[in-house]
Amino acid sequence: MNRESETESTIAIMGFTQSDSLNKESMNIQTPYLLYLADAKEILSLKVAKSIVDWRPELCVGEIALPDCAVTLGVPQLTLAEAKQRGAKTLVVGMNNSGGTIAANWIPTILEALECGYDIASGLHQRLTNIAEVRAAADRNNCQLIDVRHTDAELKTGTGLRRTGKRLLTVGTDCSVGKMYTALAIEKEMRARGIDADFVATGQCGIFISGKGMAVDCVVADFISGAVEQMAPDNDANHWDIIEGQGSLFHPSFAGVTLGLLHGAQPDALVLCHVENRSYMRGMKAHKLPSLRDTMEMNLQSARLTSPDAQFVGISVNTVDLSSSDSQAVLEKYAAEFQLPCVDPLRTGVVSVVDRIAELWPRA
Amino acid sequence: MNRESETESTIAIMGFTQSDSLNKESMNIQTPYLLYLADAKEILSLKVAKSIVDWRPELCVGEIALPDCAVTLGVPQLTLAEAKQRGAKTLVVGMNNSGGTIAANWIPTILEALECGYDIASGLHQRLTNIAEVRAAADRNNCQLIDVRHTDAELKTGTGLRRTGKRLLTVGTDCSVGKMYTALAIEKEMRARGIDADFVATGQCGIFISGKGMAVDCVVADFISGAVEQMAPDNDANHWDIIEGQGSLFHPSFAGVTLGLLHGAQPDALVLCHVENRSYMRGMKAHKLPSLRDTMEMNLQSARLTSPDAQFVGISVNTVDLSSSDSQAVLEKYAAEFQLPCVDPLRTGVVSVVDRIAELWPRA
Repeated sequence: MNRESETESTIAIMGFTQSDSLNKESMNIQTPYLLYLADAKEILSLKVAKSIVDWRPELCVGEIALPDCAVTLGVPQLTLAEAKQRGAKTLVVGMNNSGGTIAANWIPTILEALECGYDIASGLHQRLTNIAEVRAAADRNNCQLIDVRHTDAELKTGTGLRRTGKRLLTVGTDCSVGKMYTALAIEKEMRARGIDADFVATGQCGIFISGKGMAVDCVVADFISGAVEQMAPDNDANHWDIIEGQGSLFHPSFAGVTLGLLHGAQPDALVLCHVENRSYMRGMKAHKLPSLRDTMEMNLQSARLTSPDAQFVGISVNTVDLSSSDSQAVLEKYAAEFQLPCVDPLRTGVVSVVDRIAELWPRA
Repeated sequence: MNRESETESTIAIMGFTQSDSLNKESMNIQTPYLLYLADAKEILSLKVAKSIVDWRPELCVGEIALPDCAVTLGVPQLTLAEAKQRGAKTLVVGMNNSGGTIAANWIPTILEALECGYDIASGLHQRLTNIAEVRAAADRNNCQLIDVRHTDAELKTGTGLRRTGKRLLTVGTDCSVGKMYTALAIEKEMRARGIDADFVATGQCGIFISGKGMAVDCVVADFISGAVEQMAPDNDANHWDIIEGQGSLFHPSFAGVTLGLLHGAQPDALVLCHVENRSYMRGMKAHKLPSLRDTMEMNLQSARLTSPDAQFVGISVNTVDLSSSDSQAVLEKYAAEFQLPCVDPLRTGVVSVVDRIAELWPRA
């Protein structure tokens, strides 16, 4: 293909018609939210809704469910009208089913919400905008349909050019090891210390939590690094973008996304995320989890292409399956082995990691 | 995001409506071709058309151009009617302009071709199907519009599971170093020896040459490795898929595509492609070309995730800028340094590389 033209000019993604770039916040979700649990049978399928409640409870007016829903997120159970009275602007389809589709029995609630004037936001593969009756109801009521797994932003291919400001990226031995959680915890601790820091969402849960961002695994492959360059652009010298990582360089399904994200992020600082007591890559019974050392080496080697001084500033381990004393032993073991602060954000917080960052990059 | 669901089930790419997978050859371009040079001013902008003439002259009935076109590909210059009489089925938009768009002054010829019953195929970013008058004319005349940079195939995420049959992938120090050319030369040499080999196209030029394939840099990022797994599936033990590589693991714009392609290809054999006398990465003045050794190490390390015994079987160097004696000296230098067959396909052919393959994998 004609690479010359791609590296030197803006490419409008074909089939995408909107020209606002993400920096103009084209994906801007109105808050607060009413969370739609549909017919969820277990908390695991509500990952999206649960992470919004965990990280931004102030954005959640309440939840609404179908009669056969078996779970609750512990927020007020409201009707569409009640939530509207309390200020809710957007109904968030907060459930994931295995096919990534919007089930037929979920649609009546969505249509009713549109008649009440709600925007609808979904993180599923299937687009709300592709369901004719939903689209018609949205048009009729002048409501927005927001498919966060799809971007209408005009993207450019990555340039690899150095940018101003500081960037931290969470990387992992595997998928689903706490990269988003760790990034959010670091943003929170930095802000508590008065450090100018912004979480940068690269996946659906993160986008709902921050109200903006782009799902990098959903952009056209040529634009992975370019999309991340756009999401974390030039900034003040002391500003930190805390970028949510995705996948793993060792995951046979998603490593391409991970590498493009790493190159586009151009991280000054890396935090390694890991989950203890998992033997095989998520969903991949033929692939063992890589060692922490191999993961760090591969990430450093790759990161240095666009950020020559990239370094690890901490390790974040999900030790949820361990006893308190076993957890402590694991964290101490890795801290000693790698000479890095080692935390479980849920158990210990991330103070020692942010201490290390403050030590390495003292503010002017 | 919910990785569990993605690794275990088929995901229809949203917005894509056709359900035929590539294995059913949904992107099947009718041949022979009439090549449309439009208003090209230099051969460089005709990369697509020129590579079809180079590799499949028997598929090219002739060329057609606008009056201000300044170049020719040396095939018969024909009118639409003349080419039709000689059997041409598809008008190939063979020119690349810098924006990847279809210029307004190209459209009258396209419309006229549709009235004559031609299918139209384009490798540009902008979709033919997004131009209303072109679409209407195609519908009216019952002709196909084929945008080879877009796939309507239903894709799955990669599994990383071992497949039967043999695979070779060309990888590079940079973009545009001869990965497609080398793969085609190897396919040709293998077939001449009676080895069961198929070129697998992963970019637009390759797709026109082979009449099928998928542009991997145009699929949604989550599906890069999965798309390649689908294009080079289980096969006979002695069958070789010769897969065209893309980009470079060291290119800050496209490395994500390259890594996903490498993992999906699951190569038994790798051929390193390089161009002599280029200092910087294509379009990237801040990034020097990596060394051949670093490129080989990084590719081997990454390839082994899905193909533990992957190995290099040769080096292919584009020495077009060197004198004959300098070219020979360069090839001998690399051959000695890496103890591998080292060729310039245009100057020496690829016999020694295929000798090495035949030696390593003797047929039963």
